[in-house]
Amino acid sequence: MIKIGIVGGTGYTGVELLRLLAQHPEADVRTITSRKDAGTRVADLFPSLRGKYDLAFVEPAAAELDRCDIVFFATPHGVAMAQARELTATGVRIVDLAADFRLKDPAVFEKWYRIPHTCPDLLAEAVYGLPELNRDAIRKARIVANPGCYPTTMQLGFVPLLEAGIVDAGHLIADCKSGVSGAGRKAEMDLIFSEASDNFKAYAIKGHRHLPETLEQLAPYSAGPVRLVFTPHLVPMIRGMHSTLYARLTRTDIDLQGLFAKRYAGEPFIDVMPPGSMPDTRSVRASNMLRIAIHQPGNGDLVTVLVVQDNLVKGAAGQAIQNMNLMFGLPETTGLGTLPVLP
Amino acid sequence: MIKIGIVGGTGYTGVELLRLLAQHPEADVRTITSRKDAGTRVADLFPSLRGKYDLAFVEPAAAELDRCDIVFFATPHGVAMAQARELTATGVRIVDLAADFRLKDPAVFEKWYRIPHTCPDLLAEAVYGLPELNRDAIRKARIVANPGCYPTTMQLGFVPLLEAGIVDAGHLIADCKSGVSGAGRKAEMDLIFSEASDNFKAYAIKGHRHLPETLEQLAPYSAGPVRLVFTPHLVPMIRGMHSTLYARLTRTDIDLQGLFAKRYAGEPFIDVMPPGSMPDTRSVRASNMLRIAIHQPGNGDLVTVLVVQDNLVKGAAGQAIQNMNLMFGLPETTGLGTLPVLP
Amino acid sequence: MIKIGIVGGTGYTGVELLRLLAQHPEADVRTITSRKDAGTRVADLFPSLRGKYDLAFVEPAAAELDRCDIVFFATPHGVAMAQARELTATGVRIVDLAADFRLKDPAVFEKWYRIPHTCPDLLAEAVYGLPELNRDAIRKARIVANPGCYPTTMQLGFVPLLEAGIVDAGHLIADCKSGVSGAGRKAEMDLIFSEASDNFKAYAIKGHRHLPETLEQLAPYSAGPVRLVFTPHLVPMIRGMHSTLYARLTRTDIDLQGLFAKRYAGEPFIDVMPPGSMPDTRSVRASNMLRIAIHQPGNGDLVTVLVVQDNLVKGAAGQAIQNMNLMFGLPETTGLGTLPVLP
Amino acid sequence: MIKIGIVGGTGYTGVELLRLLAQHPEADVRTITSRKDAGTRVADLFPSLRGKYDLAFVEPAAAELDRCDIVFFATPHGVAMAQARELTATGVRIVDLAADFRLKDPAVFEKWYRIPHTCPDLLAEAVYGLPELNRDAIRKARIVANPGCYPTTMQLGFVPLLEAGIVDAGHLIADCKSGVSGAGRKAEMDLIFSEASDNFKAYAIKGHRHLPETLEQLAPYSAGPVRLVFTPHLVPMIRGMHSTLYARLTRTDIDLQGLFAKRYAGEPFIDVMPPGSMPDTRSVRASNMLRIAIHQPGNGDLVTVLVVQDNLVKGAAGQAIQNMNLMFGLPETTGLGTLPVLP
Repeated sequence: MIKIGIVGGTGYTGVELLRLLAQHPEADVRTITSRKDAGTRVADLFPSLRGKYDLAFVEPAAAELDRCDIVFFATPHGVAMAQARELTATGVRIVDLAADFRLKDPAVFEKWYRIPHTCPDLLAEAVYGLPELNRDAIRKARIVANPGCYPTTMQLGFVPLLEAGIVDAGHLIADCKSGVSGAGRKAEMDLIFSEASDNFKAYAIKGHRHLPETLEQLAPYSAGPVRLVFTPHLVPMIRGMHSTLYARLTRTDIDLQGLFAKRYAGEPFIDVMPPGSMPDTRSVRASNMLRIAIHQPGNGDLVTVLVVQDNLVKGAAGQAIQNMNLMFGLPETTGLGTLPVLP
Repeated sequence: MIKIGIVGGTGYTGVELLRLLAQHPEADVRTITSRKDAGTRVADLFPSLRGKYDLAFVEPAAAELDRCDIVFFATPHGVAMAQARELTATGVRIVDLAADFRLKDPAVFEKWYRIPHTCPDLLAEAVYGLPELNRDAIRKARIVANPGCYPTTMQLGFVPLLEAGIVDAGHLIADCKSGVSGAGRKAEMDLIFSEASDNFKAYAIKGHRHLPETLEQLAPYSAGPVRLVFTPHLVPMIRGMHSTLYARLTRTDIDLQGLFAKRYAGEPFIDVMPPGSMPDTRSVRASNMLRIAIHQPGNGDLVTVLVVQDNLVKGAAGQAIQNMNLMFGLPETTGLGTLPVLP
Repeated sequence: MIKIGIVGGTGYTGVELLRLLAQHPEADVRTITSRKDAGTRVADLFPSLRGKYDLAFVEPAAAELDRCDIVFFATPHGVAMAQARELTATGVRIVDLAADFRLKDPAVFEKWYRIPHTCPDLLAEAVYGLPELNRDAIRKARIVANPGCYPTTMQLGFVPLLEAGIVDAGHLIADCKSGVSGAGRKAEMDLIFSEASDNFKAYAIKGHRHLPETLEQLAPYSAGPVRLVFTPHLVPMIRGMHSTLYARLTRTDIDLQGLFAKRYAGEPFIDVMPPGSMPDTRSVRASNMLRIAIHQPGNGDLVTVLVVQDNLVKGAAGQAIQNMNLMFGLPETTGLGTLPVLP
Repeated sequence: MIKIGIVGGTGYTGVELLRLLAQHPEADVRTITSRKDAGTRVADLFPSLRGKYDLAFVEPAAAELDRCDIVFFATPHGVAMAQARELTATGVRIVDLAADFRLKDPAVFEKWYRIPHTCPDLLAEAVYGLPELNRDAIRKARIVANPGCYPTTMQLGFVPLLEAGIVDAGHLIADCKSGVSGAGRKAEMDLIFSEASDNFKAYAIKGHRHLPETLEQLAPYSAGPVRLVFTPHLVPMIRGMHSTLYARLTRTDIDLQGLFAKRYAGEPFIDVMPPGSMPDTRSVRASNMLRIAIHQPGNGDLVTVLVVQDNLVKGAAGQAIQNMNLMFGLPETTGLGTLPVLP
């Protein structure tokens, strides 16, 4: 059994970790921290977990995280980097679901997140935790930076095209749509039901933090510089993310379907759908599956890639557990077998 | 033109007043206050009103409310009573959409609202603003207490039965369901989309503030003491309220349909629906109409009354304008003619 | 492994059976019928099941149901009774998720379902499949009538009170609210998104088919005749059922909380919540759990029982599998351990 | 008063016409047809209109449409063209909310709509009813082809850029999102609440009928050939359309904000929002307003135009009435003044 600590267990990625780990045969969640809800029993805050966790949230200082094999940080940005050095020194491995270790350049981090990076020396060894692109490095990593939700879809959708060198990398477009849970469990006016439901809008067009992360990760796959226009939108649904990706083809004689099918052959959590498919987000709801469909409208020189995932699972907690499985030598799918909930 | 001031214009009852008054031929909104958003232009906070209001929110102190003919308080409980004495002294009339003047007994107010009542002397003259039950008094009132949303439906549904003396007044049940906007424009965790959508629950079973208000208003219509079990529920929809009312009949030889039809004959905003109807909330969405249907399941000794309204219109801002129309001698329907939005 | 056939696999109870059985360690789904979609692969109709079922829907006649150990009927009313005699004769056991075997009296069945009952002789041996009330009989049953969704909540909520003889059985009220999936996977105007969302209404007040079923099941628990006013409502959510039950207490000196806690002690799928709880439907979403809370508003003589379940799981497919587990000697919780999905 | 007939009054564009015309001071709706619901009173089918229409639906043959000044066709494609010749011959003017007169080339019509065009001779005189681009012709038209909902947003968003000759017309992208009411009031499986809510998907990527219409209308504004990739998506909301338009700039020294502001100066129903705006669909809900915002992410060579409208108003019935106002010499805004409903 893997001894697990969770820092910041009261947000949506935290409670999703709890849901998934309760169904993981090798997981033993030992401690869960929450500054705000310390003392509250897990099952009192989340009745859906009644009978599954005999734990209360504890103050971070009281958490004895150093007795864990792995600690998940489901916290705001800045928390993981404050504790990473000490924890890794005692042999604890870390998966950070926030952004502290996603960007290699601390200056870029500081520009976008507006806080200083407090352990830039660990950035070099931190591994970006997108298993389908980075599996071997994750296995040995002490620190895994779990990817952002949007970047997961953008990378898995664009990489096969960039690798093949068949698109104009300087003019990528990602028109992305996310369910409201992507914004977290936060009491903010924009997120309340009466504001967010029966409504649709774009947001953060001027610059979303997932843009530099995606650009940094895509760069190695492209011969030329990568530029990306990224337009996130808010969808009145709880879970689900749908990215509609556009790229201009520099060659139109390629079997795009075959390209993707080959790239992701054998991947347990990537489903390259049959030609003509238009996946809906509910086909992955509450599961770790990500589905991709490739289109070339009018057989023109634009390729449209559709990518769907559950933003809280493959886009966050599920991917974190997938990383944990790799880090501890378990089959990658362990504990991640629950099926999408439909309807 | 009626010169109008609105105190607290940034909540849902405030913005609904703005929407409705912009379409009212005799309304001239002169000033709108907001402590938090003072300086912000109305149309910047509510783009739906762009081009309709050339006003900015102002600090309450700067509002020159005493130059208005009428002031609406769309504020938290406690604000109206702090200003009522001064304003009425200068001849300004008041409609309070909060609870400050709803309860005649300051002790009951203080028990349920947990703040002291600061002008109990005005309670006697304040008029409860449910036009269908209290029209004449409203016409002459200086201070109108606009009813709560739930109490509007409960009173209009129970009064004909109590008046007729045909139900057991000691065992009334109101199983009520409200859209989320009823909780106001507040950044609270329970109200965020990811918590409130695709979900249903009861709340405040131990005691909702609309209970004493309803009991006080129903009492005069009943020979015996009125007791009421009131169960509010939260529905994942923005607007709309559906009250399912139950009472045990002490006589079963009454034409219930006829009783209600007669009681509300000629009422412009009450629609007693044909026998067998089950009104849906969207049939009144965004309008000031309230619909009622009466059922006697299995011809037994229980009567079921269904009442629907838009909680922000007939349940709040629309009723407030209906009261204003009465107070200023206008036809009661002035400015309230917009139709329900369906679908 | 239990060899399983599903008749009518394309409705919501059918696809929910498929989802749950794919995660059941002893289930081997051999055949799935559909008249309309025969020839279509399961995973093409339900992409959420891609990779999990290597089966196509087949014509009922081609299904070789007699080679199964158990057949689930997830069909319209009338189908199971047409095949029950032949199947049971060959040793196949049956769980009918429709109503064919729910009512003991064929005359009552015919009155409410408006079709003749074609095998009234099997009604006597058919067992009503509510495990918490009927566990032993289910174990040995050849034919199990899986309860309706509403009746499950009404029985589990009222039975402890009736058994204890502490309520007026002649005046029960069940104000019930269901998510839209309860109406099935049917292309009907009332169910389309633009009609059903942002809306709330009562329906079938004059008489819902779940009323006679509930009355028949409750009768044995009551000394006097049981009468029930049952008001179903439609909630704009996909899954979830919330029943608000009212009964008048004939004795008010009873520890109601203790009564329920004792009645359901040890039940794996019934959670009697702590005093003061108001369970929300999402706390059971996609799981087989049912939660109950007991209230006595104002310490008066009315008891209010809140019951929530997922209408497709404990209210249909999950309960059917719970029955199967009993019938085949498996631990009752086998394959039903997935946790509620929150948010 | 304008004497009005509506053919096909039971769909969403039909009932929206009824809602809006009931509030139009010059509208006198004389007759409404429905094959399916002939004999049913309007207010029985749509309780939201109770008390507003003393009409029943009639068989098309019984409608006496030739006594009207104008007839709106809110019908499936193919109905208007079957009656247009006869009606216009008697002096009746026509606004077709379907596609019969949108495409000038009958061959293109037949390719996309798969029915023969039965009055190609009238195509030449029919006027495309987008007032902001075509006002003068509409005034004199006998037959107005009311635009599709998506094309309205795409044209109003792209035309200023194409006119100015500053974008690559051969690589336009329109990533569009529509509320479910855009699919009409139809009992189709894909549209039911349990399928469409809490879900997001693209559809009709291979070719949507609004593509040829948009291409035909955009062509005159571009020096070179126009090509467009159009990706429609379905949003779980009732009303609202959000089009995110992308074009590559051939010149980056243009004041894009000023370009749009100037183009639409004085337009009563187009709101060019301040720089940096991200309009949400609810800011136009139930109103005839369309809002536009222009972005140039990272000051690069891609322009992003955001366009929102209510698909049933500016995208259908409201625009039809705007056209009627022009045709009958009324102020263009007559009867279209109701404000967006927020929240």
